[in-house]
Amino acid sequence: MHQKAAQLGKLALRMTTKAGSGHPSSALSLAHLVSHLMYRQMRFDPRNPWHPTADRLVLSEGHAVPIIYAAYADLGGCVGSDRDDAAQLTPAEVDQLRARDSVLDGHPNPAEGFPFFDAATGSLGQGLSVAAGLALAARLDGSSRRVYVLIGDGEAREGQIWEAADFVVDHGLTNVCAVFNANGEGQAGDVSPQQSAECLAAKLAAFGWEVAEIDGHDPGAIKSAFGLVGKTGRPLAIVARTVKGWGAKDLLTGNWHGKPVPEEKLAEAEALLDQAASADVDGDRLDGPPTPPVAASPKRVDPHSVQWPTFAAALEDAGLGAALEKGKIATRRAYGAALKVAGDLLPQVVALDGDVSNSTFANIFAKAHPERFFECKIAEQNMVSTAAGLSAAGFIPFVNSFAKFISRACDQVEMASISRANLKIVGSHAGISLAADGPSQMGLLDVAFFHAFSSVRGDDRESPLCWFFHPADAVAAYHCTRLMVTLPGMCYMRTHRPDVPLLYEPEMAFEPGGFHVLASGEDLALIAAGYTVLTARAAAAALAKQNIRATVVDAYSLPINAEPLVETLQRAGGRALVVEDNYGGGLGSAVAEIGARTAGLCVETLRCQRIPKSTRSVEEIMDYCGVGAQQIADHATALLARRR
Amino acid sequence: MHQKAAQLGKLALRMTTKAGSGHPSSALSLAHLVSHLMYRQMRFDPRNPWHPTADRLVLSEGHAVPIIYAAYADLGGCVGSDRDDAAQLTPAEVDQLRARDSVLDGHPNPAEGFPFFDAATGSLGQGLSVAAGLALAARLDGSSRRVYVLIGDGEAREGQIWEAADFVVDHGLTNVCAVFNANGEGQAGDVSPQQSAECLAAKLAAFGWEVAEIDGHDPGAIKSAFGLVGKTGRPLAIVARTVKGWGAKDLLTGNWHGKPVPEEKLAEAEALLDQAASADVDGDRLDGPPTPPVAASPKRVDPHSVQWPTFAAALEDAGLGAALEKGKIATRRAYGAALKVAGDLLPQVVALDGDVSNSTFANIFAKAHPERFFECKIAEQNMVSTAAGLSAAGFIPFVNSFAKFISRACDQVEMASISRANLKIVGSHAGISLAADGPSQMGLLDVAFFHAFSSVRGDDRESPLCWFFHPADAVAAYHCTRLMVTLPGMCYMRTHRPDVPLLYEPEMAFEPGGFHVLASGEDLALIAAGYTVLTARAAAAALAKQNIRATVVDAYSLPINAEPLVETLQRAGGRALVVEDNYGGGLGSAVAEIGARTAGLCVETLRCQRIPKSTRSVEEIMDYCGVGAQQIADHATALLARRR
Repeated sequence: MHQKAAQLGKLALRMTTKAGSGHPSSALSLAHLVSHLMYRQMRFDPRNPWHPTADRLVLSEGHAVPIIYAAYADLGGCVGSDRDDAAQLTPAEVDQLRARDSVLDGHPNPAEGFPFFDAATGSLGQGLSVAAGLALAARLDGSSRRVYVLIGDGEAREGQIWEAADFVVDHGLTNVCAVFNANGEGQAGDVSPQQSAECLAAKLAAFGWEVAEIDGHDPGAIKSAFGLVGKTGRPLAIVARTVKGWGAKDLLTGNWHGKPVPEEKLAEAEALLDQAASADVDGDRLDGPPTPPVAASPKRVDPHSVQWPTFAAALEDAGLGAALEKGKIATRRAYGAALKVAGDLLPQVVALDGDVSNSTFANIFAKAHPERFFECKIAEQNMVSTAAGLSAAGFIPFVNSFAKFISRACDQVEMASISRANLKIVGSHAGISLAADGPSQMGLLDVAFFHAFSSVRGDDRESPLCWFFHPADAVAAYHCTRLMVTLPGMCYMRTHRPDVPLLYEPEMAFEPGGFHVLASGEDLALIAAGYTVLTARAAAAALAKQNIRATVVDAYSLPINAEPLVETLQRAGGRALVVEDNYGGGLGSAVAEIGARTAGLCVETLRCQRIPKSTRSVEEIMDYCGVGAQQIADHATALLARRR
Repeated sequence: MHQKAAQLGKLALRMTTKAGSGHPSSALSLAHLVSHLMYRQMRFDPRNPWHPTADRLVLSEGHAVPIIYAAYADLGGCVGSDRDDAAQLTPAEVDQLRARDSVLDGHPNPAEGFPFFDAATGSLGQGLSVAAGLALAARLDGSSRRVYVLIGDGEAREGQIWEAADFVVDHGLTNVCAVFNANGEGQAGDVSPQQSAECLAAKLAAFGWEVAEIDGHDPGAIKSAFGLVGKTGRPLAIVARTVKGWGAKDLLTGNWHGKPVPEEKLAEAEALLDQAASADVDGDRLDGPPTPPVAASPKRVDPHSVQWPTFAAALEDAGLGAALEKGKIATRRAYGAALKVAGDLLPQVVALDGDVSNSTFANIFAKAHPERFFECKIAEQNMVSTAAGLSAAGFIPFVNSFAKFISRACDQVEMASISRANLKIVGSHAGISLAADGPSQMGLLDVAFFHAFSSVRGDDRESPLCWFFHPADAVAAYHCTRLMVTLPGMCYMRTHRPDVPLLYEPEMAFEPGGFHVLASGEDLALIAAGYTVLTARAAAAALAKQNIRATVVDAYSLPINAEPLVETLQRAGGRALVVEDNYGGGLGSAVAEIGARTAGLCVETLRCQRIPKSTRSVEEIMDYCGVGAQQIADHATALLARRR
């Protein structure tokens, strides 16, 4: 095994030197563990990284990726965007690490053509959650797939690792094996004693894991530790003491994290590794991995092929018949009914929630499909990355929490976007209409965040990286959920707490990027979304009393279709006031960008003007934040006075 | 103690019933612990919650706040925005819980006039980090202050709790005492066995804490557990088994989380609590807390009173003389030099970093002021909330990491904004100019996020909630750092990896919201910030060859001063092209909002067009993402063709 470790190590050194950047010392610390995993432990076919039941490897400490590239190239692994496009990785390509046209990105990135990985990593501490998602998916698919994950000691400081450790135990995911690479050295200094091998082992035991603590460069110890996988009825953690820069440590002393060996020192480093290889006495040849088990046949149904029930039937079915009769239904509740329907129709729809399913109404889904509902408890980061893992295995995960708490996982959402995960995120209790609970529970920046995603094009250069939906009533929430199921890639929906009247006929059409004109007037347009559509309508009524005729636009999706919006605004005197119950950078910015590039349009925005606080009614908080109906009407009047 | 617990419990029940919302059952589970803490354990003066060395209480599970309000009102505690404005809380005000004009917000919120608290809580899992910040501050101030923190069992699932647990041990903060309220019931269901009292105790022990596991309604057990504070040389965790809805549990059965007792059942609930009180046999009268220790005198210097060295002197002093001579210095490096100067001049400046101080260059500060530098390791959420705690104690914390990793703590940043924390956040390696490391390390959404904050007004209704700085060269980075030190409230600065030439004379003036015109031309304006200023200048040079005269604007701060910008754009033919190396919702949106409300201006934006990947050079990645110099020039030419 020393020979294989040294061979891969030399390749990792060379490719980072050629690239002029990279993390060879971290890579070397994993040389033996990766040799064992990829040549003996994992059941997979390097020629078919898309195999549906082969074991998977998540490299949580993404910066160590050169050692994986080395092994994969040595094994003749295939790269490419899909099976039709597959090609064996060549040694020449390995030298192209980090180059513009290379599939070998600086950190693991399946979307650039390296399908051995399931998720982009590199922002630390997320891999165990991704592994948990893959493991859940394997269980749902009836597959005996095992999921291995390599975690750095330094990154084990990230709380998300411990959220994932809890989740794996809660859900009995004994098909996960976590390997901690305890090399003791971080970037700016030594790893804390809190992340020493002993301390990690003690923590993992306290979290309920089976723990094996070993020398990560001892072939025998590695073999026997991995022999425990699937044997103990508990998830297995291997805490491996390793050496950063193994084999060439004397050369890579000091501040080496993230630095390649200079070209002129490469030969010396390679010679050191050759010397390390000569310690190989076990005669254990590492040729290639065992073959994967026979494929299960995961159940997937084409989302376009199914027939959705009518809005009324879906709400009746979800026990919301009485609410429907009253005609006042919160968007979050209608979403819950729609999510349940999605689960009825498509076996690959799954839902995750963080102890608030009775508020997000994901509990309607949970009741109908308990085996596809995953209670993540109060740990949103793990929830999002777990969903990314489920997506990588072909499921359509709906992630549920308050919009405010989704922001706990902004980084994880972005990493999922790099993985091109088919993630559907639904943030409830958004905006200030939450009133009494105060600002610590209100989503005020979610629109800016997801609008930013919606502003970038996806790989097809046509659709956005993320579709944003913001329904104003239950009908809209129902149909937008349906759109989210059908659209490929990331979608975000924003729902609100209060019950609101029905605005639309049950079979109203909704489309990505669409908007609806609720009233037409030629003086100006009031543009709103979600709860503020109600406020904007009230403002329009107040304006009508002053003989000002306002168009009212429900802008329920971003990026909004620019051309029809421009036509609508031109018919409304070329003047628009956008109203938002959140901070800036959202709908107001989106419409302003269209207005600013179109001659003759004037766009202003009235948004949440200050940090909210608790109030007892929705009207009070809208007024407190400067977006009450009368304030909108006053602002519109002033705008007209200036721009007529 | 049962009597006091019941008395406070009744008050908590009544105020939530009056408010029509709130979490009385969580509040009741804390009745005894809060009685002991606020009447016997904590050394504080209810009449002076601003006392600089009094013990502090952080309520991490913010939704349980009614029990604190009850005790504080019973003790005649003072509320208000400062000592001049102080007034004793009256029983009538308690009934105003969650009302628009009440200081008693739905969740702890010092900024609304409840100075007993140091930080807004309610988004869960953040309190232990805030407590750590307060404890660090006490140590720096030479104060014997102790910091108590109440943590829910459900929220102990948040990874941040475990980041903080590590941090407290790493820094030997034995002046922190964490109390876990293990009532076993969450919102949507039971708390996981992973957060049971036993499991929490085992985890805390593995994390290196002294642990006492007790019955949280047993007065004797409570007394003896708290007797261990400061006695064992390790931070103390008390894991208390409690009963959700204590004293009235039979009434509050089922799905009670977040629901008040209906008005008609209040008498019954109160009667149950009276019955619970009658179990009081210890005869232990709880009258009021011990007085706080004699005040230390924290060292603070008025940031406006100090004289900064010249740019050249500061860089020389930081060992950057050679770089200065070469004339190429990364903005992150100049920031490091400036941060060190801030530390030289002001004893209240502190810095935190997450194992990347040799990349953010916070290590220049660390070397000069080791006692005021806090290595947080790879745990960004804890870092931000710890900084919020330091800020609450009067320090000026600079938080350092890659811009990408700051996004790990978006929710914590927002909570700090609700606390009105004086937080200075610096995100390095922002944008796509990081090139080789790929998208997992690039800050692409930070501009949208902090622009959203900058779009809202602070409490003075004049300045924004957050000032945003984005320097294009080392001189700008130096002076923007100085501005951040002087400006009250949250500031964000975005720095880049590459070395860049000096654009400015050393004593160039910079101001919040300012911008600089680097070149004047009447055909159109190119507006850029940070690294893209260089690209925009190259594009202007390319345009000059086509006889197109471009104005080049360095928009180094948001919210940008609108009037002078409009004048500048009008002089540039009324046409502007904004260039960004990140996703949407940022500078382009900010300028578009100004353009859209001003007649005769046309604004377009060219921003990062797709998810980046690794490339070996900055030029390649700018081109790959569609924002290379030639692409900017081409876009400008097309814009002119359309709009001339």
